[in-house]
Amino acid sequence: MNLNGLKPGGLITFTSDFGTADGYVGAVKGCILSIAPQVRLVDISHEISPQNVVQGAWCLKRAAPRFPAGTIHLAVVDPDVGSARTGIVMETERFLLVGPDNGLLFLAAREAGIRRVIAIDEAHGAWRKSETFDALHLFAPVAAHLATGMGLGDVGPDISDWVELERMEPRMTPNMIEGRILFFDRFGNGITNIARGLCRGDPALAEYGTRGRAAIHTHYAAIGHDPGCAGASSVGAIWNSDGLLELAAYGGSARERAGLEEGTRVRVYFEPQST
Amino acid sequence: MNLNGLKPGGLITFTSDFGTADGYVGAVKGCILSIAPQVRLVDISHEISPQNVVQGAWCLKRAAPRFPAGTIHLAVVDPDVGSARTGIVMETERFLLVGPDNGLLFLAAREAGIRRVIAIDEAHGAWRKSETFDALHLFAPVAAHLATGMGLGDVGPDISDWVELERMEPRMTPNMIEGRILFFDRFGNGITNIARGLCRGDPALAEYGTRGRAAIHTHYAAIGHDPGCAGASSVGAIWNSDGLLELAAYGGSARERAGLEEGTRVRVYFEPQST
Amino acid sequence: MNLNGLKPGGLITFTSDFGTADGYVGAVKGCILSIAPQVRLVDISHEISPQNVVQGAWCLKRAAPRFPAGTIHLAVVDPDVGSARTGIVMETERFLLVGPDNGLLFLAAREAGIRRVIAIDEAHGAWRKSETFDALHLFAPVAAHLATGMGLGDVGPDISDWVELERMEPRMTPNMIEGRILFFDRFGNGITNIARGLCRGDPALAEYGTRGRAAIHTHYAAIGHDPGCAGASSVGAIWNSDGLLELAAYGGSARERAGLEEGTRVRVYFEPQST
Repeated sequence: MNLNGLKPGGLITFTSDFGTADGYVGAVKGCILSIAPQVRLVDISHEISPQNVVQGAWCLKRAAPRFPAGTIHLAVVDPDVGSARTGIVMETERFLLVGPDNGLLFLAAREAGIRRVIAIDEAHGAWRKSETFDALHLFAPVAAHLATGMGLGDVGPDISDWVELERMEPRMTPNMIEGRILFFDRFGNGITNIARGLCRGDPALAEYGTRGRAAIHTHYAAIGHDPGCAGASSVGAIWNSDGLLELAAYGGSARERAGLEEGTRVRVYFEPQST
Repeated sequence: MNLNGLKPGGLITFTSDFGTADGYVGAVKGCILSIAPQVRLVDISHEISPQNVVQGAWCLKRAAPRFPAGTIHLAVVDPDVGSARTGIVMETERFLLVGPDNGLLFLAAREAGIRRVIAIDEAHGAWRKSETFDALHLFAPVAAHLATGMGLGDVGPDISDWVELERMEPRMTPNMIEGRILFFDRFGNGITNIARGLCRGDPALAEYGTRGRAAIHTHYAAIGHDPGCAGASSVGAIWNSDGLLELAAYGGSARERAGLEEGTRVRVYFEPQST
Repeated sequence: MNLNGLKPGGLITFTSDFGTADGYVGAVKGCILSIAPQVRLVDISHEISPQNVVQGAWCLKRAAPRFPAGTIHLAVVDPDVGSARTGIVMETERFLLVGPDNGLLFLAAREAGIRRVIAIDEAHGAWRKSETFDALHLFAPVAAHLATGMGLGDVGPDISDWVELERMEPRMTPNMIEGRILFFDRFGNGITNIARGLCRGDPALAEYGTRGRAAIHTHYAAIGHDPGCAGASSVGAIWNSDGLLELAAYGGSARERAGLEEGTRVRVYFEPQST
């Protein structure tokens, strides 16, 4: 695939923690459409929690690979705007990512296969480094010019080092995996770093916190129907569509019901546990 | 109108309770654009309250009929994903609806005139039943393939039975209608199930709860100007643009001012009430 | 530029305080696309705080000028819908604004240069005045018909008087400017009415409330690194991308940390202040 020369009518997605009420998102959209009038803009999210780079990285990882080949993903969650952190473009086999070099783009890029990373040349004439709003002055013009055919080599020099998100790998023993809740989704489901692919065997039970136990079900509604669960207070677990273990409730928030927090410890066992 | 063979460039709207920060909405959009690159995506809402099928149904009922003929409305509020509930396509005179068979699509479809209902064939090659995320694996591909010209008959078999939302009809006497607050909008207005068309005469007053009284006005600002209302605490009523009675406040939330709740009883009288 | 005869395929942006869950935003989008099927819709925001005309006006002022020439900006934050307030179209050198005459459109229009203002003729056949939902029945059809080539003269008569937002000018002395916090952005930064262009000299310090002091930095991250600031409780100030002084925090909300409110007094001095 040659991303250079992407045809007008190409796609740019936009992900940020800006909310929309302040007008910053609108300004960025206007800037892109002024440079690349034929581009099609797609909102992924502007509701990433303020400055939550990890949440933004997971959001991108879920969404970016589903888009047509050649899509440009602009993403800005950028607590260090104005400091020395670099702006980058990450090229994968399937798409381009444009944003700050703080790990935000990393999860999506790693999964898709990183092919080339460019440090945005801040002395370029078509954009400029800003002190407070690189989304508008730096990243949006880069994304728009890439969409109208600018080559990656014209954006800046290749680099071989970039910020990776701290890996949050679970701890493994022969008959157990111990992980943690990474974050919560909108429904109050607690997503952990325990991947189904890591399991030796097919665990039936997850333990959480100091005393919690959750049967592992195939889908949300089954949690509510679990005869072993005490009605409204029941919390179960499922393997979600990313292959990660989730603590979940049916018709409610597992976070609230079980008092879960980010970082709460979760374990799955492959063999019946001796108590 | 022949919805089969809808031209590329057609419209797909998307309504859900996913929020956007988790990336699920982005993933669905990417999937649709990968299958149907020329389709135009329009967001209706991703802020339906989690698992609130009734709110989603009203949102669709308001929005869907305004779109051009042939629009495909994808809607997913789906607490029972992974269970035995069916996925359906509802065809009306004007548009198609794609989503779970749980009542979500029903209000919009009924008003527009239900012409044909299809149970999505889960053994079809172009999509698959999922345990946790039918929006991505089942409903989005169906909507996208319909947009690129797949016929309804290729989606699955016709059915003659589907889930209807429990009707919440008001109680009527010769000189009164007694209904309830169905839900609140973003401004804290309480929307009731009392339709203007049901009224014999033109009521001037609504009673709510055990003691509340609200004059019926023509527009929001008039509530604030009502000399019979005590300043900031005033709550009035209006007929909204759907023809339903709303309890409302000017420059504030009727819900908060009057302590209203979903289910609060509301009455209108056609004749002056003897006290 | 001749905005009349704007080609199909033109842009309409949409800004409101409706939220999306109630379906009103969807209805407006459907109406526009039914009248002008080729138009490209871009959401600016539907999360303006309910009835907050000032916030909406600032949002538009930030976003509108970035869009391509000829863009039509539809904006509705309209507490007085149904009353005697007029609907207007404001034409500037670069874009059109359509919405209520309550100041919402004014900041964006003034900055871009007001060229012509039209009072929407409510007796026109293609739209109508509504009691509760002018966005759908009045403003959306006007915007859509303008996008398909209707001339401004066909929308209604020219007017020479319109609502301006109350000016909130700071107070100035030879060595000081005293302003106020106008509103907060999503991150809890307090935006003031102190414009960098008004300053004689380059102030290093801002005072706020009765005792607060904030060093003026070049970017957000520098606030956190300020050795004179006491760790997590530090609040600093920056000149934002609109050239306005902001009270800000790094990795947190200045509003919460310093107990700021809308209206909190803020001062900058050009000469060292004698204490």
